[in-house]
Amino acid sequence: MTAKALIKDFEAIVGKDNVLTSEADLASYSYDAAVLPNAMPGLVVRPTTSEQLGKTVKLCNDNAIPMTVRGSGTNLSGGTIPSKGGIVVLTTALNRILEINEEDLYAVVEPGVITSKFAGEVTKRGLFYPPDPGSQTVSTLGGNVAENAGGLRGLKYGVTKDYVMGMTFYDVNGELVKTGGKTVKCVTGYNLTGLMVGAEGTLGVYDTITLKLVPPPAAAKAMMAVFDTVMDACRAVAAIIAAKIVPATLELMDNFTIRTVENFRNAGLPTEAGALLLIEVDGHPAMVEEDAIKVEDICKKNKASTVRVAKDAAERNAVWQARRDALPALAKVKPTTVLEDATVPRSKIPAMMSALEDIAKKYSLTIGTFGHAGDGNLHPTILTDKRNTEEWHRVEAAIDEIFDHALALGGTLSGEHGIGMAKAKYMKQECGIAAIEYSKRMKSVLDPKGILNPGKLIVG
Amino acid sequence: MTAKALIKDFEAIVGKDNVLTSEADLASYSYDAAVLPNAMPGLVVRPTTSEQLGKTVKLCNDNAIPMTVRGSGTNLSGGTIPSKGGIVVLTTALNRILEINEEDLYAVVEPGVITSKFAGEVTKRGLFYPPDPGSQTVSTLGGNVAENAGGLRGLKYGVTKDYVMGMTFYDVNGELVKTGGKTVKCVTGYNLTGLMVGAEGTLGVYDTITLKLVPPPAAAKAMMAVFDTVMDACRAVAAIIAAKIVPATLELMDNFTIRTVENFRNAGLPTEAGALLLIEVDGHPAMVEEDAIKVEDICKKNKASTVRVAKDAAERNAVWQARRDALPALAKVKPTTVLEDATVPRSKIPAMMSALEDIAKKYSLTIGTFGHAGDGNLHPTILTDKRNTEEWHRVEAAIDEIFDHALALGGTLSGEHGIGMAKAKYMKQECGIAAIEYSKRMKSVLDPKGILNPGKLIVG
Repeated sequence: MTAKALIKDFEAIVGKDNVLTSEADLASYSYDAAVLPNAMPGLVVRPTTSEQLGKTVKLCNDNAIPMTVRGSGTNLSGGTIPSKGGIVVLTTALNRILEINEEDLYAVVEPGVITSKFAGEVTKRGLFYPPDPGSQTVSTLGGNVAENAGGLRGLKYGVTKDYVMGMTFYDVNGELVKTGGKTVKCVTGYNLTGLMVGAEGTLGVYDTITLKLVPPPAAAKAMMAVFDTVMDACRAVAAIIAAKIVPATLELMDNFTIRTVENFRNAGLPTEAGALLLIEVDGHPAMVEEDAIKVEDICKKNKASTVRVAKDAAERNAVWQARRDALPALAKVKPTTVLEDATVPRSKIPAMMSALEDIAKKYSLTIGTFGHAGDGNLHPTILTDKRNTEEWHRVEAAIDEIFDHALALGGTLSGEHGIGMAKAKYMKQECGIAAIEYSKRMKSVLDPKGILNPGKLIVG
Repeated sequence: MTAKALIKDFEAIVGKDNVLTSEADLASYSYDAAVLPNAMPGLVVRPTTSEQLGKTVKLCNDNAIPMTVRGSGTNLSGGTIPSKGGIVVLTTALNRILEINEEDLYAVVEPGVITSKFAGEVTKRGLFYPPDPGSQTVSTLGGNVAENAGGLRGLKYGVTKDYVMGMTFYDVNGELVKTGGKTVKCVTGYNLTGLMVGAEGTLGVYDTITLKLVPPPAAAKAMMAVFDTVMDACRAVAAIIAAKIVPATLELMDNFTIRTVENFRNAGLPTEAGALLLIEVDGHPAMVEEDAIKVEDICKKNKASTVRVAKDAAERNAVWQARRDALPALAKVKPTTVLEDATVPRSKIPAMMSALEDIAKKYSLTIGTFGHAGDGNLHPTILTDKRNTEEWHRVEAAIDEIFDHALALGGTLSGEHGIGMAKAKYMKQECGIAAIEYSKRMKSVLDPKGILNPGKLIVG
């Protein structure tokens, strides 16, 4: 089939307005948030109904055209960078919240719903959708599910995976597959829901997603603990967990990040501090009061110079604004921001932090580290300029070494950003060849022409 | 290869003592807890090390011999009934708790560890493993994972799936596959962990399982609410959830079950009651006090004649003893006990209960119903005698109708007992043909000779 005939076929499915072919449009969808080379798609298609989505998948498969499903393109591992000349399938018009069920605590959504918009609607009904990836004001729920996105509340509330109860998805033939359901307990058939979460768009295309909702915590209290050294902060983290306290959020910022955030907003952060812990406890009001006192006490015993407990919503918001500022502030320092998410068991955070310091020195790089200390998911952020080839080689060597350390400490390559194109080559080191071969066999039969987001997750 | 040569090969792997061939031994492993025909295996093999387990799998595959992995055989859907002449692989000697990590809140176990023994060891370390299937004093963790077992705490704490962080498993070639890890967040590679949970032994053989642990609740309070009618009890369940209270346990027993349990133990249950709710709230002591008062109030507003709050551990235990007695008491009434687990969204519990009453009348059957009302997972239990062919036909028709109703109410065939051999034929009705075809394609390439627990979950 000629390219022109194919365009006509896509137009017949989604309408002329929803097939983008201009150079400018194609360029807009040639990259995502990862530091990786662009790739120009051949066509961008935007289905507006489930039926159109299914037909789009089938047409791609019938013609063996690579397709990459894309929500908002906030992916940090290149998961939404298309194949050169392939099709980008936008989910932005599949953005309906189909149901929020307050009696049975679930919601059904299309994949293109914006995460924070959904969370807001849920809040309005007096319920709670906990997953809060950093990109939530822009990211889509479909993208969150494809990447099994994490966020700040992972320690207490888990990650996206823990909230996906079921879904319908199109297989590569455009057949609609139903998996899971609307009940807390469901063991009918293989757990294809679990398999599809985090599959980075390589095994099927989400049509609708059923998400679990929970009652919101009755109270919450935020605080900021100031430490002279990162190690003191790390010890406080371990002591909080050892005391069987499970904060909703337990975040760390190192000195470089603190100073950069302060330059960015002048919010009065302690720029001389070696590290900050930003902590929120939530739940029953009595528990929140007690936990807050215990956490403050533990921080002080671990040499916190001050612990500021937020007294009202404004102070609470100031604590979290500082955390939200971390990435945008760091990203302004240099042209290229490499945000990693290697993750270790939380007791290994001190070892990982000291490895990161050594690596920064060894390769003469600027690394600001912040992240989810409570669940071992740090974000060492390398500030660099990719055009500086010599420095970029050092960055690559540093990343290799970060992964080596994370794995040696019993951790993982990626806590929440996905493997995508960025980390596929490291997979063998963590999972071993048998897991990759098992995965490849599965992929080979579920997507025999290899059209579903090729080059991601499992390669070679 | 001749049968004798094969026996020698298995003996070479696991030792002579761990290959069982006598008629009596084979008969012992020809059935499980499901009401289904027996099937005599050809051989029972009991590996005592991981290496032996891998070699056993490979030998079965090399010789295209069907193999069924079996823990304690408490399966209620025939998942551990072997293929006639096939191999039963016992996990009973793979029963080591390899690690309980108190800092990082996880444990690593072999598949043959007994559930309640594990939970007890975890409790000793001041931590908590919530999944509590009814068979927990006998069942193995490997079996729980293979079935994605539920239990009484599903409403608040989730099911087995929610506690499996990672595993190593043998693929059909005897290669060891590593998936998941020891961190709360891990998105490296496909979520094979999720896929393997509930796969009923059809996609691989568990070697070690990494389980998530949580801090235990600081306090708990149990109570028993007595209602004149099942419908009043159901309305109370809905009202508790609507009040955003999440009890750890929220169980229902109908009048027939109450009377049967009382006959069994004479514990002083109210035999005239239409239904009982057995409720436990847990968490922070202040929350427990408040929730207990709220729950009591809600029950009374929904016409509970009395609500007895357990005043001490003995009274609390009495409440749960009544619940634990339900199945053994019912099972003594007639020779055959068919325990179903069709599950509906919890708001549909009243509709399901009234459907069950109608079905019992229509087919002139004795059905006692108890179960996890809080998560919509009821256990209608048909008491019958399979040798009475005429009645058994009515039982089969009743089961069909129970499933029809559960599905029509947006529910599922099986909440926690698995599909196994018992329900495979109903799968299409719930999942549709596309999900079955997708699953079959996957199975065909991951187990090309079809040796891993054939005839279970996905058939035809």
